[in-house]
Amino acid sequence: MTGIIAHGEKRLVLVSGRAHPQLATDVARELDIELLPTTAYDFANGEIYVRFAESVRGTDVFVLQSHTTPINEWLMEQLLMIDALKRGSAKRITVVAPFFPYARQDKKHKGREPISARLVADMFKTAGADRLLSVDMHAAQTMGFFDGPVDHLWAMPILTDYVRTRIDPSQAAVVSPDAGRIRVAEQWAAKLGGVPLAFVHKTRDISRPNQAVANRVVGDVEGRTAILVDDLIDTGGTIAEAVKVVLAAGASDVMVAATHGVLSDPAAKRLTESGAREVVVTDTLPIAPEKRFPQLTVLPSAPLLARAIREIFDDGSVTSLFDGVA
Amino acid sequence: MTGIIAHGEKRLVLVSGRAHPQLATDVARELDIELLPTTAYDFANGEIYVRFAESVRGTDVFVLQSHTTPINEWLMEQLLMIDALKRGSAKRITVVAPFFPYARQDKKHKGREPISARLVADMFKTAGADRLLSVDMHAAQTMGFFDGPVDHLWAMPILTDYVRTRIDPSQAAVVSPDAGRIRVAEQWAAKLGGVPLAFVHKTRDISRPNQAVANRVVGDVEGRTAILVDDLIDTGGTIAEAVKVVLAAGASDVMVAATHGVLSDPAAKRLTESGAREVVVTDTLPIAPEKRFPQLTVLPSAPLLARAIREIFDDGSVTSLFDGVA
Amino acid sequence: MTGIIAHGEKRLVLVSGRAHPQLATDVARELDIELLPTTAYDFANGEIYVRFAESVRGTDVFVLQSHTTPINEWLMEQLLMIDALKRGSAKRITVVAPFFPYARQDKKHKGREPISARLVADMFKTAGADRLLSVDMHAAQTMGFFDGPVDHLWAMPILTDYVRTRIDPSQAAVVSPDAGRIRVAEQWAAKLGGVPLAFVHKTRDISRPNQAVANRVVGDVEGRTAILVDDLIDTGGTIAEAVKVVLAAGASDVMVAATHGVLSDPAAKRLTESGAREVVVTDTLPIAPEKRFPQLTVLPSAPLLARAIREIFDDGSVTSLFDGVA
Amino acid sequence: MTGIIAHGEKRLVLVSGRAHPQLATDVARELDIELLPTTAYDFANGEIYVRFAESVRGTDVFVLQSHTTPINEWLMEQLLMIDALKRGSAKRITVVAPFFPYARQDKKHKGREPISARLVADMFKTAGADRLLSVDMHAAQTMGFFDGPVDHLWAMPILTDYVRTRIDPSQAAVVSPDAGRIRVAEQWAAKLGGVPLAFVHKTRDISRPNQAVANRVVGDVEGRTAILVDDLIDTGGTIAEAVKVVLAAGASDVMVAATHGVLSDPAAKRLTESGAREVVVTDTLPIAPEKRFPQLTVLPSAPLLARAIREIFDDGSVTSLFDGVA
Amino acid sequence: MTGIIAHGEKRLVLVSGRAHPQLATDVARELDIELLPTTAYDFANGEIYVRFAESVRGTDVFVLQSHTTPINEWLMEQLLMIDALKRGSAKRITVVAPFFPYARQDKKHKGREPISARLVADMFKTAGADRLLSVDMHAAQTMGFFDGPVDHLWAMPILTDYVRTRIDPSQAAVVSPDAGRIRVAEQWAAKLGGVPLAFVHKTRDISRPNQAVANRVVGDVEGRTAILVDDLIDTGGTIAEAVKVVLAAGASDVMVAATHGVLSDPAAKRLTESGAREVVVTDTLPIAPEKRFPQLTVLPSAPLLARAIREIFDDGSVTSLFDGVA
Amino acid sequence: MTGIIAHGEKRLVLVSGRAHPQLATDVARELDIELLPTTAYDFANGEIYVRFAESVRGTDVFVLQSHTTPINEWLMEQLLMIDALKRGSAKRITVVAPFFPYARQDKKHKGREPISARLVADMFKTAGADRLLSVDMHAAQTMGFFDGPVDHLWAMPILTDYVRTRIDPSQAAVVSPDAGRIRVAEQWAAKLGGVPLAFVHKTRDISRPNQAVANRVVGDVEGRTAILVDDLIDTGGTIAEAVKVVLAAGASDVMVAATHGVLSDPAAKRLTESGAREVVVTDTLPIAPEKRFPQLTVLPSAPLLARAIREIFDDGSVTSLFDGVA
Repeated sequence: MTGIIAHGEKRLVLVSGRAHPQLATDVARELDIELLPTTAYDFANGEIYVRFAESVRGTDVFVLQSHTTPINEWLMEQLLMIDALKRGSAKRITVVAPFFPYARQDKKHKGREPISARLVADMFKTAGADRLLSVDMHAAQTMGFFDGPVDHLWAMPILTDYVRTRIDPSQAAVVSPDAGRIRVAEQWAAKLGGVPLAFVHKTRDISRPNQAVANRVVGDVEGRTAILVDDLIDTGGTIAEAVKVVLAAGASDVMVAATHGVLSDPAAKRLTESGAREVVVTDTLPIAPEKRFPQLTVLPSAPLLARAIREIFDDGSVTSLFDGVA
Repeated sequence: MTGIIAHGEKRLVLVSGRAHPQLATDVARELDIELLPTTAYDFANGEIYVRFAESVRGTDVFVLQSHTTPINEWLMEQLLMIDALKRGSAKRITVVAPFFPYARQDKKHKGREPISARLVADMFKTAGADRLLSVDMHAAQTMGFFDGPVDHLWAMPILTDYVRTRIDPSQAAVVSPDAGRIRVAEQWAAKLGGVPLAFVHKTRDISRPNQAVANRVVGDVEGRTAILVDDLIDTGGTIAEAVKVVLAAGASDVMVAATHGVLSDPAAKRLTESGAREVVVTDTLPIAPEKRFPQLTVLPSAPLLARAIREIFDDGSVTSLFDGVA
Repeated sequence: MTGIIAHGEKRLVLVSGRAHPQLATDVARELDIELLPTTAYDFANGEIYVRFAESVRGTDVFVLQSHTTPINEWLMEQLLMIDALKRGSAKRITVVAPFFPYARQDKKHKGREPISARLVADMFKTAGADRLLSVDMHAAQTMGFFDGPVDHLWAMPILTDYVRTRIDPSQAAVVSPDAGRIRVAEQWAAKLGGVPLAFVHKTRDISRPNQAVANRVVGDVEGRTAILVDDLIDTGGTIAEAVKVVLAAGASDVMVAATHGVLSDPAAKRLTESGAREVVVTDTLPIAPEKRFPQLTVLPSAPLLARAIREIFDDGSVTSLFDGVA
Repeated sequence: MTGIIAHGEKRLVLVSGRAHPQLATDVARELDIELLPTTAYDFANGEIYVRFAESVRGTDVFVLQSHTTPINEWLMEQLLMIDALKRGSAKRITVVAPFFPYARQDKKHKGREPISARLVADMFKTAGADRLLSVDMHAAQTMGFFDGPVDHLWAMPILTDYVRTRIDPSQAAVVSPDAGRIRVAEQWAAKLGGVPLAFVHKTRDISRPNQAVANRVVGDVEGRTAILVDDLIDTGGTIAEAVKVVLAAGASDVMVAATHGVLSDPAAKRLTESGAREVVVTDTLPIAPEKRFPQLTVLPSAPLLARAIREIFDDGSVTSLFDGVA
Repeated sequence: MTGIIAHGEKRLVLVSGRAHPQLATDVARELDIELLPTTAYDFANGEIYVRFAESVRGTDVFVLQSHTTPINEWLMEQLLMIDALKRGSAKRITVVAPFFPYARQDKKHKGREPISARLVADMFKTAGADRLLSVDMHAAQTMGFFDGPVDHLWAMPILTDYVRTRIDPSQAAVVSPDAGRIRVAEQWAAKLGGVPLAFVHKTRDISRPNQAVANRVVGDVEGRTAILVDDLIDTGGTIAEAVKVVLAAGASDVMVAATHGVLSDPAAKRLTESGAREVVVTDTLPIAPEKRFPQLTVLPSAPLLARAIREIFDDGSVTSLFDGVA
Repeated sequence: MTGIIAHGEKRLVLVSGRAHPQLATDVARELDIELLPTTAYDFANGEIYVRFAESVRGTDVFVLQSHTTPINEWLMEQLLMIDALKRGSAKRITVVAPFFPYARQDKKHKGREPISARLVADMFKTAGADRLLSVDMHAAQTMGFFDGPVDHLWAMPILTDYVRTRIDPSQAAVVSPDAGRIRVAEQWAAKLGGVPLAFVHKTRDISRPNQAVANRVVGDVEGRTAILVDDLIDTGGTIAEAVKVVLAAGASDVMVAATHGVLSDPAAKRLTESGAREVVVTDTLPIAPEKRFPQLTVLPSAPLLARAIREIFDDGSVTSLFDGVA
């Protein structure tokens, strides 16, 4: 047969943007590899420059970025990295976006809005991404926005394992901070062994029409430790309000748990003052010192990400890590 | 200037598959036009043949199909019609799919499943569709599956206007049949003037682990007319169970309302026996005589569809028809 | 070098839709493997659910479906399987469609028709198929409808090897049942060693203008065993008529041979009564008991399919299996 | 309403490559317009330069090229023109390729061949073509190679109208020069009022295995004027041989008719010497003086092309011009 | 004819991002229209929200954004606007990016870099842009990065018209600040009537190998007013150095002219101290008060942009506005 | 695990078009392999036929073509080869185009021109190319026209190594034949150790307006060996004129060096008579005997191409071969 024959090999490589170096280091350590050395800086007018210091030809690359503020900057940096990998002949490119950017803009709430999460998925594809790895997307439907394999990891076990050490499930209730997130709360309730379920319902007081909304708890939390669960905590407004409503409804105590600690200002202040005993998040996003507060507990997400990356590279069967009910 | 100059014109045309001829006729009548004559039949081995009897060159075509059983047959018929329109030089092709097929398979619930709703959206695109028009998709995120404009109509006003004539809002409660659909119930509650909200929660009795699930109502329905709301009723199992649970929880009465009356067997039997006073749906899907039952009320969707089609053709501002909260 | 290095491997996997389980089993046995366990069923409204019970990450998958009635159902099932494989990270996906669906709609016969075979090819691509494997497509041009490699197998040797055991070539003539299929008949004539060739020509009797068509044989069949050949037999009308015309033209005997036994009703009745000595087809399509009749002989296609699959997996040189004249 | 509103207009423009200026001029005259002035020349190394001398913004452009030798040159010129039109903001671009280049390479005859006609269709699309207009493609399936509207014109009436003035149908037979083209012959036979049909069959004399092929007529031509029909005449080998075989079979006289007069050397010599009374083609391809011979008759195709262009521009219903059996 | 017929209309609409409101206002005023009211703001975590307050159905929209710092933010905002326009059924979307973002990263200078300008062009396309309008791109080849019409405007006449009022061409020389930009300088030289040309050449002093580069003027500037021209001035380092070298080479005086005033810190300081008499730019980018300095002159670009937009809308022949040498 | 598992292998294969068989042979010899046997010829009407004589399934193919006159013929041949490879199941297809066709048409110089180089890049993609390998493209931006990895080789070291043996750098000057190519000259000047730099500037004599252009040297060449450098020499007009101008400006001697020897007629005559001592090119294009002249030196490019191909196959880090400044 004409030609040269060689044995096939595959090479796993991890590269990272500048948004969350600690997470990148942690994932690399879990994988027992070095991050591929990468140059990245901003030009004077804000344009980003990236370059990889080693060859990426033929590699199976995972491009990690944590989409924190300034989120558009970090998104663009990741897109440029993907483009450079594609043009540098990487064999397969997997976007690792633990917190999927613009995940909350996953539909048009009104006419003439964008569907930003779809646009982000399409931009990853256009830049050259073959696959996507994310954790607890705001809506699971978002995995359908990407035209290719999406591994949707499920951080709930990290949170529930921890919460179980801090509360007595038989005295607890799981509470969703609003009607749209009850599905997650229901999964928590099942995971904790069938604890009661409730949610905070926003209503307008119809007797006083010009009045602002009044929130109330639907379901029974009296005398129980309420576990308020959500996929993310941004400015903390909804959660802090929910803590108050739940306490007012007779909960003995409140714990808050969420995968993504966005914790935009004034979340630290609000949550500190909310009355919650503890607020638990993972480190999918970096949490700067000024965002931290005494009640905050941050759990590591690197073991989960590293295991998924390794199994994707190995073509292993990793369904157990993925998604909620799998 | 070289060439021939002519005035631009645009021509609205409505074509329909064979699934729900009554709806097509109704929409055409509302638009005050004839359906474009179309030949469609099955070959002996089940392959479908379609052909348009008149020219469609340069037209702004709306291709209506109602995705009832046999749903794959009707989906394929619509795709073939789109292909024929594209190759026949239609200028713009809008899929009108009042009940979006496979809308419930909008994410992977477990690994190694398809995301069927995305596949359907992509197939419409591949066949040649430029735009999509649908009513009350199971998840609003599905509009992000299509790479182009999606007009997502909102049938709730048709249902609430009717329900208001049948109940006293001050004695009512809106109930979601499961945790995942509370958002819709919340919109109903607001629309009816701030009536109380509840949902049916499925739990496993942890003391008897091999036992089936037990459902219970979270929220207060006692002495009230419970309005159970959902986007669709398929075999009626969840709804019929919810009716019983709600009545057991003290509701004085139950009405059921949903946009899409799939009503697969044994829905008619189940709903008849469920104890619901009335079950209200629209005619986005055909309801064969054997699917009907005494408590069933079917409201017309043609006026809504026709108004949307007309405004799309006219480039009008139809946000008011679209989506929930717009 | 940064990263983890591993040896490349490839894994052949065979999955099958529900249309023709016997063929799937036969192909798997020829390959000496098990079919990958797959869940597939219909929801109450006809929507199909599919899921693979084992990981398909990194695999070289062959997705077999036999496109029999209800053909749109089986086509959609196969598309959903492809989507699930793509999203489940299969490395390469080959559609195995022994009888290519809608192959006869491979051009516009009149204006405003679809080109359905092209649409089917595009839908396979959209769902995620990388390659196509089919047998004796109605027109060989159809392989050009798919944007990727198409392996077009040639079942004629299966048929000619058998026919040779049943007739004396020196006393035979090969006859095409209509003018459009003579190319295939010509290949048969060559393959059988240069036997005479004829075809059935449909004419209108111009002296009686309102009369139906009259068929007649062009070419000489007198005193010979006529072998009527075609790519498929659907309702058997053309073939049964051809048998009669050929006998009327003096043929001593008639055998019928075709690759695909569609055999839609009333093919069994027509062929039984046609006067043909024997009708030979392969089992690319399932042949239900009610489609069978005494003169029917069904030859196995699994050996051919399995050999092609194995050689595609091995990157072997399988031109000998493919196409007619190679 | 914000903005500026203007009336829509559309403008038909015809541009042409350099391959067949006479045809371009004829089509323009039929349309009663001027060709849009265009610069086109070759650089010293054979690269082609094209530029339009007037604005093409917003126009409905028809890009005519006749694919004669050097065919790759003219194909590339047309692709460059399409690119320039796309980048120059033409609104709609229709390729007019009366003789579709590489139409005979419409399938793989053996493994490891291209499907050149599909590649050509894809290149037109890539360059920016929206639609295609062609005449009597070698296989009608080729229209399925283009992802968009294809208007497939049918030149047979031009030829049959002429032939009818030259022969007596009641004394004629239509003959296909090989088995693969009988479908066209059958259409001619019907069009001429049901005249007899025959074809030339190539066989190997099995008693003398190393001998070349022997051709013979299947069907009856004795004492009749044989009308040999094909879609094109290239080097004339097949046709000239068929003329001889048909005359040997007793035909009183032979006429040859084909849409496309490729007439590559030595077609003129072969046809002159073949014994055919007359050879009729259209001018879809330019016929240089050295390709002409006394028996050749060339009929104009511009009226057909111009009518189709005008009706496409007008969104008229032009099915009557298109395809064979419509 | 079946259906509803209406006259075609087209509507020009201008929308703008938040980067340079003054330019948007100026362009709108030149067009004599209002900007379409648009909501745009940042969420707490930096995600951008956009929505149009009026219908954009069927419109010919021009989406203006000025890509100043923070450039990734403004790029993302514009992409979201395009997505919203596409999904809101705009008929045609033209990106107006007077300063094309990432234009300087138009090739790989080293291996493993992105080609960022191509990525940006692809992202515009992916979001839904049909066309592009830009001014004096860093390399004209960048227009080839976009798969569609690009109108490349030429701001040089604005600058040369002004410079002519400030200098005596017969005593001037045009100087390129580095070897790669001489083409632009050559166009200036021709435009000013054939004035002498020079460029600044960076060399390493080979006698002192570890020494930094030394710049020198190639060409004659002695006793002349040197006009230093470039497409943009970013931090002003190259330009300020060139001013010094040119003065050292005997120029009597220096004017600096460039289309895009990026003027990143410390450009104001450097240029003030450079010795240049005057620095002329246009307002394609906003120039904040802290970027301004006494020698700076800012010329308006809105008339140029508005004329181009109007002519694109009108399908006029605007070649005169476009590109350099047309 | 279900299925068959095999070890992955990869196989390098080199195929070549007919344009420059010597180069193909040289590259194969450098790689120590045979060219894959390929059939390629022209049909009578100029359509090209290609077929590979061996299986290419699963191969890593490099498709070499040298784009000399007739350039459109060779381009089309290469596209057909790519299509055949894609359909023949090659795993990865790399276009090797040492001289990128239409590279000089890399932007619109005026309105209504194509961007031909982008079209060529898109056609390679459409046909099925995964990657591109080229040498010294006219503008480096052209690598951004291809949506995939482009390895851009740098032939300058081949030329400078040779030139260094023929001149004394301390007595030399590098001269660009026009303003647009100075960047290349600047790289030469650096590579040769910081020799002086100059360029030829075309001006119109403004005192005699109807007079043709006058060229003059900007920079100092007096008494030096001028090395005129460019990426290609086509008809030699610009270069021959530059030789004369440089000699007139006092250069003691002139050498000419360029990567691509297009050498269209009358380059041989012009360069012979120009007064240049030597003209050095590589053999990226074939140089027919009639293009040769006494002063011409042709250096081999096969070693460079072969090394790049081998390292691409091996996923090596070959940045050192690529591009200028890396």
